[in-house]
Amino acid sequence: MNREELFEKISIENQNKMIMIILDGLGGLPVKGKTELESAKTPNLDDLASNSELGLTHPISIGVTPGSGPAHLSIFGYDPLKYTIGRGILEALGIGVKVGAKDFAIRGNFATQKNNIIIDRRAGRISTEKNREIISYLKKRIKKIDDIKISLFSGEEHRFVLRLSGNDLSENVTDADPEEIGKPILYSMAKSKEAEKTAKILNKFIDRLTKELKDFYPVNTCLLRGIAKYPDIPPMSKLFKLKPAAIAVYPMYKGLAQLVGMEILETQKSIKDEINSLEKNYNNYNFFFIHVKKTDSYGEDGNFEKKVKVIEEFDSLLPRILKLNPDTLVITGDHSTPSILKSHSWHPNPFLIKAKYQRKNSETATKFSETSCAKGILGQFNSTDILPLMMANSMKFRKYGA
Amino acid sequence: MNREELFEKISIENQNKMIMIILDGLGGLPVKGKTELESAKTPNLDDLASNSELGLTHPISIGVTPGSGPAHLSIFGYDPLKYTIGRGILEALGIGVKVGAKDFAIRGNFATQKNNIIIDRRAGRISTEKNREIISYLKKRIKKIDDIKISLFSGEEHRFVLRLSGNDLSENVTDADPEEIGKPILYSMAKSKEAEKTAKILNKFIDRLTKELKDFYPVNTCLLRGIAKYPDIPPMSKLFKLKPAAIAVYPMYKGLAQLVGMEILETQKSIKDEINSLEKNYNNYNFFFIHVKKTDSYGEDGNFEKKVKVIEEFDSLLPRILKLNPDTLVITGDHSTPSILKSHSWHPNPFLIKAKYQRKNSETATKFSETSCAKGILGQFNSTDILPLMMANSMKFRKYGA
Repeated sequence: MNREELFEKISIENQNKMIMIILDGLGGLPVKGKTELESAKTPNLDDLASNSELGLTHPISIGVTPGSGPAHLSIFGYDPLKYTIGRGILEALGIGVKVGAKDFAIRGNFATQKNNIIIDRRAGRISTEKNREIISYLKKRIKKIDDIKISLFSGEEHRFVLRLSGNDLSENVTDADPEEIGKPILYSMAKSKEAEKTAKILNKFIDRLTKELKDFYPVNTCLLRGIAKYPDIPPMSKLFKLKPAAIAVYPMYKGLAQLVGMEILETQKSIKDEINSLEKNYNNYNFFFIHVKKTDSYGEDGNFEKKVKVIEEFDSLLPRILKLNPDTLVITGDHSTPSILKSHSWHPNPFLIKAKYQRKNSETATKFSETSCAKGILGQFNSTDILPLMMANSMKFRKYGA
Repeated sequence: MNREELFEKISIENQNKMIMIILDGLGGLPVKGKTELESAKTPNLDDLASNSELGLTHPISIGVTPGSGPAHLSIFGYDPLKYTIGRGILEALGIGVKVGAKDFAIRGNFATQKNNIIIDRRAGRISTEKNREIISYLKKRIKKIDDIKISLFSGEEHRFVLRLSGNDLSENVTDADPEEIGKPILYSMAKSKEAEKTAKILNKFIDRLTKELKDFYPVNTCLLRGIAKYPDIPPMSKLFKLKPAAIAVYPMYKGLAQLVGMEILETQKSIKDEINSLEKNYNNYNFFFIHVKKTDSYGEDGNFEKKVKVIEEFDSLLPRILKLNPDTLVITGDHSTPSILKSHSWHPNPFLIKAKYQRKNSETATKFSETSCAKGILGQFNSTDILPLMMANSMKFRKYGA
């Protein structure tokens, strides 16, 4: 029996409520002796931590820094090495494109060619407005190639997403991108027999687009990369018998939540707005994923102070979440984003779980911080175990074997 | 190379002695701030803990509560998701039925039918004495069906075990149980071609039994469930080159030990009796599994105080075990059974290993308790690693690779 079969076998449907709060990129590294989380004034989190089980979680495995895709699969309980989310799909999710079971997504660049030689891979980084005009023009003209439905979506500047919907498509094709200027337009090639149709569709698309855009200089061709299939992930409703909902502001996180079958709830942009949405929808679901983005954004910017402020903002709003009195509450990150690195990192995430049947941490683990969590009763574990641990604490797992 | 191939490759036969003491359901949850183990006065365990390596173990994986079967496979070093012990086999082990390599075991209920309609699935919960009379009567009359040997064993009240011995049997059949009253006798069906013989044997058995018992009202038919094959588990003598023995009072634990090839030693019922047996047999084996049941029983009863008392009773007898001076001594649980839950739970087990070549725990991990073990030098690990760790500490594993 594998892990997923086990979970499906032992999970029980009940009304107990679980809330998982992801402060994106929460974990940090010390600057003048303290991390962002240790520098923040967080009386509510510390108070909660002293009555919770604490630990540290590894998104993938020790030493491996994850992107948002695998990091989120992991906290949702899925093996991020088993399920991979192709670049095209991630790009599509990132700009809010809906992708479904039979869809393929591809990252496109508008580019400039002269006599079929690529002379700019980004078509002079045109404005996003210009991009929208061109996409709107193309949408009316390229709707189908052979039996495959074509959909186009604007990204930022020169970027767009191409979505293919139809039968007999395959990921097993090469990128249509010469990767440097001065080389001819490169067509996609099938890497196996069953991918021939896909390569043909992509190449016909390049030719059609090039023809349609002959008067749009510097935009007069495109590059296509990262063709990816919608991943076939069993939904949380099947694996864990949950009725799950997501509250997130950024499209990529909504998209990731959708991939595992969460319903996406309406929310405005602030943390306060997200908690409003939680309160409003609290009776209708039994699992809530709440995503706070700005901890990561400021970490990536190298802005230690502002990352501290976001943590403090969340802390001040925590009592509203506690008031809902969920059966199980988790607060953690998807990965660390230390401001001094200005990037995601491999350092494990501070982790807190509050439920009814719990043990006590060491008497020196009393705060919500990286160092304190390292002394917690849960030790260090993989993020893929977070959801099973929440299930257990919510009495949603029956005994395995007699 | 898989894990079992690794163990087989690196294990060495030597005379060093290992003792594994399982206090069933040892781990608990705090009541008024302390778990059962933390409430018990255990000067000997605490003294031993301060000179041992400590940690916490997970029987299956984080959040998963195990039954006795998978929990014991795990502490014996076997992957409990790879080897599953079917319900029929577990029932047979539970009442002390010997099952061997070619045997199948089935849980039986005596039931009541009227005009072939099941009107009581438990035949009025007849007394165990009545059950014994009926089984004794049947044993003389049903000894074989076709080429399959039939054996029958009384359980409690309406329960019995049917053992089939012979060739070409299969688990791949449906239960012969309509699951509710008012429905006709349900026969077993083969779920695949190779299971047809098994279904036929089971159905002939039902008809024979029904015919034989026509004058035993309310017992006049039976239901058959959980047909299971003796699991094909490589013995500890092969995997670890051990000469292993088990000292347990309850049939199920003797049965589980037998499944992995342990010899079962004679013992009376108290912990003191079990230690007598250990002393008596100490020269004849190099691995001893000693099972103490009552910690779990009182946990399941919700009797915090009595669980504490059993732990204290064990503590008072510990010096006798220490006097044997085994090369490696482990004291732990198979799973936790917190009194406040009155059931098995997912919380990891306090774990102690005493041997010659060991590191020191943190200076705050000085007792044998859940919180203290969480600070131990061993951290948290899977119960399947307990036996390899004992092997290493007993110098029974050679270096892997050059």
